[in-house]
Amino acid sequence: MEQPSNILKYKHLGIYTQNENVVYMREDCHVCISEGFEALTRIRISNANTSIVASLNVLNSDILMPNEIGLSDSAAKKLNASPHDTLYVSHLEPIDSLSYVRAKIYNQKLNYSAFNEIITDIVEGDYSTIHLSAFITACAGDRLDIDEISDLTKAMIASGKQLNWDKEVVVDKHCIGGLPGNRTTPLVVAIVAAYGLTMPKTSSRAITSPAGTADTMEVLTNVTLSAEEIQTVVEKEGGCFVWGGTAQLSPADDVLIKIEKALDIDSEGQLIASVLSKKSAAGSTHVVIDIPVGETAKVRSTEMAQKLKNHMETVGNAVGLNVKVVITDGTQPVGRGIGPTLEAIDILKVLKNEVDAPNDLAERALLLAGGLLELSGKVEKGKGMETAQQILESGKAYGKFLAICKAQGRFTEPILAPYTFDIKAEKSGILERIDNRKIAKLAKLSGAPKSKSAGILLNTHLGENIKENQVLYTIYAESKGELNYALEYKNYHNNIITII
Amino acid sequence: MEQPSNILKYKHLGIYTQNENVVYMREDCHVCISEGFEALTRIRISNANTSIVASLNVLNSDILMPNEIGLSDSAAKKLNASPHDTLYVSHLEPIDSLSYVRAKIYNQKLNYSAFNEIITDIVEGDYSTIHLSAFITACAGDRLDIDEISDLTKAMIASGKQLNWDKEVVVDKHCIGGLPGNRTTPLVVAIVAAYGLTMPKTSSRAITSPAGTADTMEVLTNVTLSAEEIQTVVEKEGGCFVWGGTAQLSPADDVLIKIEKALDIDSEGQLIASVLSKKSAAGSTHVVIDIPVGETAKVRSTEMAQKLKNHMETVGNAVGLNVKVVITDGTQPVGRGIGPTLEAIDILKVLKNEVDAPNDLAERALLLAGGLLELSGKVEKGKGMETAQQILESGKAYGKFLAICKAQGRFTEPILAPYTFDIKAEKSGILERIDNRKIAKLAKLSGAPKSKSAGILLNTHLGENIKENQVLYTIYAESKGELNYALEYKNYHNNIITII
Repeated sequence: MEQPSNILKYKHLGIYTQNENVVYMREDCHVCISEGFEALTRIRISNANTSIVASLNVLNSDILMPNEIGLSDSAAKKLNASPHDTLYVSHLEPIDSLSYVRAKIYNQKLNYSAFNEIITDIVEGDYSTIHLSAFITACAGDRLDIDEISDLTKAMIASGKQLNWDKEVVVDKHCIGGLPGNRTTPLVVAIVAAYGLTMPKTSSRAITSPAGTADTMEVLTNVTLSAEEIQTVVEKEGGCFVWGGTAQLSPADDVLIKIEKALDIDSEGQLIASVLSKKSAAGSTHVVIDIPVGETAKVRSTEMAQKLKNHMETVGNAVGLNVKVVITDGTQPVGRGIGPTLEAIDILKVLKNEVDAPNDLAERALLLAGGLLELSGKVEKGKGMETAQQILESGKAYGKFLAICKAQGRFTEPILAPYTFDIKAEKSGILERIDNRKIAKLAKLSGAPKSKSAGILLNTHLGENIKENQVLYTIYAESKGELNYALEYKNYHNNIITII
Repeated sequence: MEQPSNILKYKHLGIYTQNENVVYMREDCHVCISEGFEALTRIRISNANTSIVASLNVLNSDILMPNEIGLSDSAAKKLNASPHDTLYVSHLEPIDSLSYVRAKIYNQKLNYSAFNEIITDIVEGDYSTIHLSAFITACAGDRLDIDEISDLTKAMIASGKQLNWDKEVVVDKHCIGGLPGNRTTPLVVAIVAAYGLTMPKTSSRAITSPAGTADTMEVLTNVTLSAEEIQTVVEKEGGCFVWGGTAQLSPADDVLIKIEKALDIDSEGQLIASVLSKKSAAGSTHVVIDIPVGETAKVRSTEMAQKLKNHMETVGNAVGLNVKVVITDGTQPVGRGIGPTLEAIDILKVLKNEVDAPNDLAERALLLAGGLLELSGKVEKGKGMETAQQILESGKAYGKFLAICKAQGRFTEPILAPYTFDIKAEKSGILERIDNRKIAKLAKLSGAPKSKSAGILLNTHLGENIKENQVLYTIYAESKGELNYALEYKNYHNNIITII
């Protein structure tokens, strides 16, 4: 399709658009004129080695000369373009897999081959954000049946690298989010790796929450490791806590998660496919999944949890994973901190067995670690939690935690944010209700997870006796603007914590 | 929310992104640093008079100084920004109506107030393309019931200007697309306006087709008129053919249509709301709607057409319109031309009663014009078509057509595209089938509707006796690249026209 006349010289513009590929061309450049390109046309840009699809922004100023072409930073990186490089521009061939997206919009059932084509094109970068958003939405709201979720999961596994650990048992865990502060993963990894199991944990960054495990662990260590580096860490220490994104495991998931974040949704089908594709691609064989249930958690009723549990276990089976789902209490946050740094502080307190360590977080971690020890077949049924507790109390889990951090490149002590504001009780009484969603929103408005040390430090739990003027929680922020922004939201929403 | 420190100086960058608001700021500018803004954050930009929401692109080159801010052309226009103007930057307050979009994604029913908030925010420009695409998708595939379609329609009417003609009867027509070349509207307007009825016709540009009526009429006259200009034309001539977009009638529709175009979908609920909101806002009282039915038309079966007819009439009733739906033959294109200029040529031939005028187009126009004359109550039932025919054959319709074009600012004779290619029959036989979708796709790949004179000229109709090497149709293009692109598609798809 490239014609010799469709050649332009690359100029560095330094425009950062995150993942979005944008190409800049002059309105009066010969390619725009001869090809009839106009703003937002999706076009293909190639060099001798590779090609990408990008959306056109048309320039009518002298930032570019008519024979020059500019690229957003991510597009330039994908093409490995240097100033004065020659780039070829051509029409985008029709994206056939979009017909499957349309079929899904119109409630038709898709098969593996359809999902595979869609996911392949998404990983290639051929979908615009409009297409991605339509795909996410068309699959949300119970519009994928169990076969479709399995097929989507398989397609997502196939779209990236797959790790192989050469071990009979490779364990993993996952928590279906929605519960602020519930940062058990690093504790579980430390405990089961200290026991001797292999747990190559890849985590995601926050989707709609104030912190994902990867955001939290990044406070303490490096989480952006290559597949090779992960392999080295796990061979040495038996476990790791890394971000799944750069490891190229289920790369479609990282693209889709950004769109889900913008929409603030996390639908069942995508959720299962996201979790299980990452687990399977990471080479896991046995996975424990924690579903906290509560009125303001992500999963609100036991029926929904039960349905999700069944679907998780069925899809797990279909993709060759041994999945055990644990339904837990999701009526209030777990631990004290909400936000990457504040959660990292909780984790260290538990590992060091400090007197003011949050008990609820420790107990939740022991439940899941015990479940994994039993699921692996290495520890007798009924003895898992006890075994996990011995490892934690002995300090072996803390030692393993530090060793893994060091193997990942560093261990850094967490530092709190400079701007704080105490929220005090307006009356005395019993703490009746904590709105998980609103407390999470407040932590996000204070800057978390982008501002790592921003967030909320909770001083109270459900059922406690509260005295007037007692500090209920403290807001932490890295800038005054963010602190004010969180406070403004707080002032509009008085029912974040209910005292009766 | 604006803090005095959040001030930047506007610099013109001349980046055209169509309707999309993009703001450019330096990575190291004090506002990005103090507010924690990062790429693609949605932020609010204000001056003393107004404010907009835009997506941030972060710059790390000297296109901007750290104290400067750039805007995409559409954003600059909305703010009426001049170089060196002072602009204020602030966090975007949460968009409350997105919770209704999420509710719709999860299959909940929305009421008028929810649709009204969504549509108001869309018209304000507060939704990103990701949000718009999710809204469109969540409403597609039969996910709106009849009450929701009525409420969406009312919300869209309320979102823009509403014309009032001070007449008891104001007629209009609409064709549910999907049938290439079926350009009856300009003919119907000319006939009924010549009869003396008021028909202030606003049309849309192509959504997924190679030409909309507005695209076609733009070849012959100006279609971008203000509400005041439309009023003047209609008072003088009794009719008009204008693009509905700039008239600010149902402005949400114009935003949503761009997203539907990118997705290549046109769902029932949005379709009804789009059509009827435009009609009602334009001040119509009596509307005839043409639904062509055929295997490769937009509406594929009589049941679907019947369902759409019922919904159209019910929603029409709910918003105070007298709607009559006519179900017509949609098995093949109507007329010879497909693409703005080629269709304009067909229209002129019919109006001038030329010997080679396409009969099928003339007949379809007379059917609809006759239906309108009867629906209006001015012409006796059963006499509509006959009356319409007299007006057309007498030349009165042609005279009225030219008069309206001149009132709209110009009448221009159409000019054909320079690059052509004849597609010939590979064998002799009977023409059995024309794939409307593929022939439309071919016209689009040749450049229509963007390249006005591009498209397809059909030489044949269903059932005709074809001889080997006879020209079946000619492809017209404005550039060699587009012609080649269409030919490449043609070479992959041999079943565009089937001869047996």
